[in-house]
Parts: sequence; structure tokens; C-alpha cells
Amino acid sequence: MSETRRNFLKLGAGVAIAAASVAGPAIAAPPGGIEHPRVLSFRRGQAAPRVGALTASGRICDVGAAAKKAGTKLSFDPNSMVSLISAGPRALDEVRALLAKGDADTLALADVRLTSPLPSPTRNIYAVGWNYLEHFEEGAALRGPGGAELPEHPVFFTKAVGTVNGPFDPIPYDPAVSTSIDWECELAIVIGKRGKNIPEARAMDYVFGFSVINDTTARDIQQKKHGGQWFKGKSLDGHGPMGPWIVPAAGVDYNNLQLITRVNGAVKQDYNTKAMYFKVPRIVAELSVGMELEPGDVIATGTPPGIGYARKPPEFLKPGDVMETEIVGMGTLRNEIKSV
Amino acid sequence: MSETRRNFLKLGAGVAIAAASVAGPAIAAPPGGIEHPRVLSFRRGQAAPRVGALTASGRICDVGAAAKKAGTKLSFDPNSMVSLISAGPRALDEVRALLAKGDADTLALADVRLTSPLPSPTRNIYAVGWNYLEHFEEGAALRGPGGAELPEHPVFFTKAVGTVNGPFDPIPYDPAVSTSIDWECELAIVIGKRGKNIPEARAMDYVFGFSVINDTTARDIQQKKHGGQWFKGKSLDGHGPMGPWIVPAAGVDYNNLQLITRVNGAVKQDYNTKAMYFKVPRIVAELSVGMELEPGDVIATGTPPGIGYARKPPEFLKPGDVMETEIVGMGTLRNEIKSV
Repeated sequence: MSETRRNFLKLGAGVAIAAASVAGPAIAAPPGGIEHPRVLSFRRGQAAPRVGALTASGRICDVGAAAKKAGTKLSFDPNSMVSLISAGPRALDEVRALLAKGDADTLALADVRLTSPLPSPTRNIYAVGWNYLEHFEEGAALRGPGGAELPEHPVFFTKAVGTVNGPFDPIPYDPAVSTSIDWECELAIVIGKRGKNIPEARAMDYVFGFSVINDTTARDIQQKKHGGQWFKGKSLDGHGPMGPWIVPAAGVDYNNLQLITRVNGAVKQDYNTKAMYFKVPRIVAELSVGMELEPGDVIATGTPPGIGYARKPPEFLKPGDVMETEIVGMGTLRNEIKSV
Repeated sequence: MSETRRNFLKLGAGVAIAAASVAGPAIAAPPGGIEHPRVLSFRRGQAAPRVGALTASGRICDVGAAAKKAGTKLSFDPNSMVSLISAGPRALDEVRALLAKGDADTLALADVRLTSPLPSPTRNIYAVGWNYLEHFEEGAALRGPGGAELPEHPVFFTKAVGTVNGPFDPIPYDPAVSTSIDWECELAIVIGKRGKNIPEARAMDYVFGFSVINDTTARDIQQKKHGGQWFKGKSLDGHGPMGPWIVPAAGVDYNNLQLITRVNGAVKQDYNTKAMYFKVPRIVAELSVGMELEPGDVIATGTPPGIGYARKPPEFLKPGDVMETEIVGMGTLRNEIKSV
């Protein structure tokens, strides 16, 4: 690994751990210790992604290797997060047992590359628009006539599969494509169980866990082109960093999470999921109407106020900027904007 | 196979062949014979989909089985259309050589079940909205203020992976989900080569072929809910039948194709791709801006006028209706609307 990359990671992961240890439950000792193991996907060199779990001291347990060493037969393929998720509660029990063995043979965060926890989704990322009233209002004036009418149902769109990006990877910037790249810190739902027409009251049974996602958006493409459909402006390659890990649902108070975006250290968004207009169970229920959800599906739940586009004057990301996307107590993404 | 299903197929495929033999090149003898082999995916019983090719007499050559018998080593996996597409021109040469051996050991269309030519896409179906001026205008009045402003760029949205459906399979109907299911006959582009920021002048190099798709739409969900984003109304399970096969690009005059929808035999759409506002190369080029396209990606190119929603009074599909979606000379889908 290059020295630059090592320093970048140190800064990124280090800031995350430091911030979390002040502002929320320390990442180094997740709430409940290993009760709610944080699972992630990582690469070493050019090897295919493998499933890892965060140890109590913030190191990475290579789940497949640890199981092999312990003689544990896993109920899932340790090269596939979707396989872990699909295996149900037993998989997390197996991960807990491996984590309980301590730090021997674990890897330092700086010695691997974290990918998105779900590096190869087989369908687009689902996303919700306008899910915080104040964000809806900051956009209303820009939308023109009729733009202030609040939707009675969640606004759904998708982000292309190519937007998938790691928690510490650069975000490509091409001025020929867009010069108005904007941040959107969001809570990501990870679906755990196949389901269709899911009742709201049972929706949480279908949620495996939560993660942090930045629904990075090319505003010029989203707003001014393509007749008002958001897909294209939401779908530039690499414009959807996610991670650093998935926290199992039982370990997340999803109605009380602080979402923070920082650009070059300056706070741009700082808001709580308490203010979500459509709550997590409603989103899952409504998205599943007539449309089956599958284990490993990701739903970005909408961003709070503070986006660059609505600032006066508007602010956008430029090459060299470092965007941090944090959910306090869960984790922080740190992505540099990089010219291609 | 049940007698009902056999009759249904006979009607479906029969009508297609009969209509094509009058109105365009006969499906039983595709333009160029085996020069542009029509490739498809099919199942026998519960077996996984396999790649097939249409013989000159309208039977199905099981490509893997035929290659085995002929001692041909294929450059692709005959269980995967994406593999065939990714293998490039050599794959079609291999299929041509197998078809040249004639009808021995081929299968009757009625003895297999055709799936979508791409039964397991790994990303959503891309789709274009408002791509025929008259269709745009039929919607303008319904869209209200600002609705008549023509987009300067193609309108892009996606259809969920679960919309994928076979050319002769039923379309599920659940009145608790939607009672305004509408037809949209469209030309589907199938991408053949990985590409990003593709210049319009070279866009056709990235197109493997074309197929027929019906961008079946729940209008109530598309128009009245979810804040104007179309994804959800376009994405009910099974609401995207496609096929019956893919015709290689060199065998398709894509700027002069007649698109026809019939419901219970009555013509509802009958229009030519000559009237497309954004042509195929422009669509491919613009979709690829900042976003890599991959072999096997499907782009539905928009529907001509004649949708049910814009009729006076509006017309929608109901259980028992048979929707036929034809592109003359390419093929016909025949899907029954069926209560779930």
C-alpha cells in the first residue's frame, strides 16, 4: 500500500474512531460489544472481496480465514455479504463466536481496502427523495410551481449499480460530465429477507441492518436535464460511497441517529433521523408493494437539509475536496473528490 | 406442458408468425436467413435457462447441446446470454455454424418456455420516457403546468430487475396494488460492449442487438404517488415482458420499425420508430455519460402514442386481457393479464 493511501486511511478511519468515541458509542467498542457485530467487505491487493467483521479493538477479523482456523463450518460463503445476510440469524451467531476468540490473526484496518459492504449488488440501489421536511422545503423554491406540494408517499428512484463505491475510495470528477457534484448523507437500510407487500408493522423483520451512504448527486444533470427524472443525475460511476460496515438492525436506534456531512472539515449537514418524514418501516413497506425485495437490497432513506445546491450561493464539490459522511455511532465515510 | 398453455403459445407464436409473414419479413425465415441469428433464452421444465437460436424454419436450436454434438468448443457459456454477448462477433459466428447444420435435434417452440432473452440482469432495465412527440403531447395536458416543455435530453428512469418477464408469460394483476395497468410497446436496445462517454458517432459499435419490450406501467402509481418519480410505477414484478429473442444489430433497420400493441386483438398502438425524437445512437451516447454501460444492459427506448391512460375515457388492462406487443419483422410478445 502506498504511503499516501496509508495516511489517507489513517486520517479517515482515525477521525471516524476519534469522533465516535466523543460523540457516540466508540467504533472501537461497538454498542453491545460483539452482540451486534459490524460486518464489512474488504480486499487485500487484487483479491476478490471477502467478508470481515470488526473486532472490539477496531481490527478486522477475516471471517473465512478465522472459521477455517477454528474448524468452524460456516452457514454462508465468506466471500459474499449477500450470502451472510441470506443465511439469517445463524450467520451472525457464527461471526460472534469468531469475534469472541479475540484479536489473534486479525488485520489492521490500514492493511486492507474496505469496499462497499455490498460490493456487487445485482440490482440498482433504491433511494428515497425529500424525506426530511426542511430539505423538502429548501428544494421547493428551486422546483417552481407545484414544488411545495408534499408527497403522500415516499419518493422512490434508483442509483445505478456503478455508483457503488468504498467508504474511503476517491469519487471520480469529470468537468465534462458535471461541475455541480453535491453531498447527501443518508442512512442506508440493508434488506435481510425476501418479501413483497410487507406490512409496515412487520417491516423490521425484513431489515438486516443499517449502513452509511452518501447519495452523491450531479445537480446540473438531476435538475436541468432529462425531464425531471432523477436517475441519471444520481447515477454517475462511483457516486455512491457506502460503509464502512453494516450494523445489525438490533444494534441501531434508527429513529435517533445524527447524520453529519463535512467537506474539508467544515460541517455541511448535521441533523437527526428523528426528523424523517417517512420512517424506516414505512419506507420498506411501501417500496415492497407489488415488488419483491431481496436480501442485500439497499435503500438510501433520504438526506436532511444542508445540501450544497440549496446554499446561497450554491456550493459544490471540486477536485481535492474531502467529503466525510458520518452517522454518529455507526461510522464515517471519507472520500476525496478526484479528477479523472 | 398443459393443453391450455400449448394453445396459448400456438395462438401467440402463431399470430406472430402469421402477422409477420404478411406485414414484414417472416419470423420463420428471418431477414438474411441465418446471417443475423436470433438468439433467445429458454427453459425446459424446471431447468436453468439455456441459450437458444431460432432456426430458419422457426424451431429452436439448443446452442450448448448442438455444440456438444458437433464437437464445437464455444467461446461462451451456453447457459448465459450475457456470456454470448460478451464474447463478441465470434459467438455469433459459432451460432451461425450450428444453425447451418439444419433442423436435426432442434426443439419446437411449443415444447420449451421462452424466458426473457436476458433472464437474470444484474442491474435495472434502463428506460427512456417521452421519446415520440405525439406521445409526449398526449401526456402534456395530463402533466399540468410546465408539462409541455420538451426535454433537451432523453428522459431516463429505470425498471426494477423483478419486472423481467418472458415473452409469453402472464403479467400478475393485484387490484390492491394497482387498477390502472397500461401498455407501452418499445424497441429495446441490448448493449454489446462495455463503454462510458461513448461518442454518438460510434454508439452503434456498442449495440449487440434489439428486442421487443413492453414497459408495462401502473399509471396510478406513476402519476399520482411518489412525487413525480416514475420508478415505482414502472417496477411492479413481471411488468416488463421482453423477447421473444434478440436480433443482432446488423439485421435491424432500427429507424424504420413498426411498433404495434394489440389488446384482445384490437390495435392500440401502431407507430414507426422513424418518429423517435432521440434516436438509438443518441440514447446510448447520452446514457453512457459518466456511467459505464455493460454487455447485456437493456435500454427501453420509449413508447409511441396510443397508451391507455391518454385515451378518452382512459383504458387499462384487466385480468383475462391478452396484450400483444409486436415489432414487425422482429417478433411478438403475447402476455395474459392474470390475477394473483
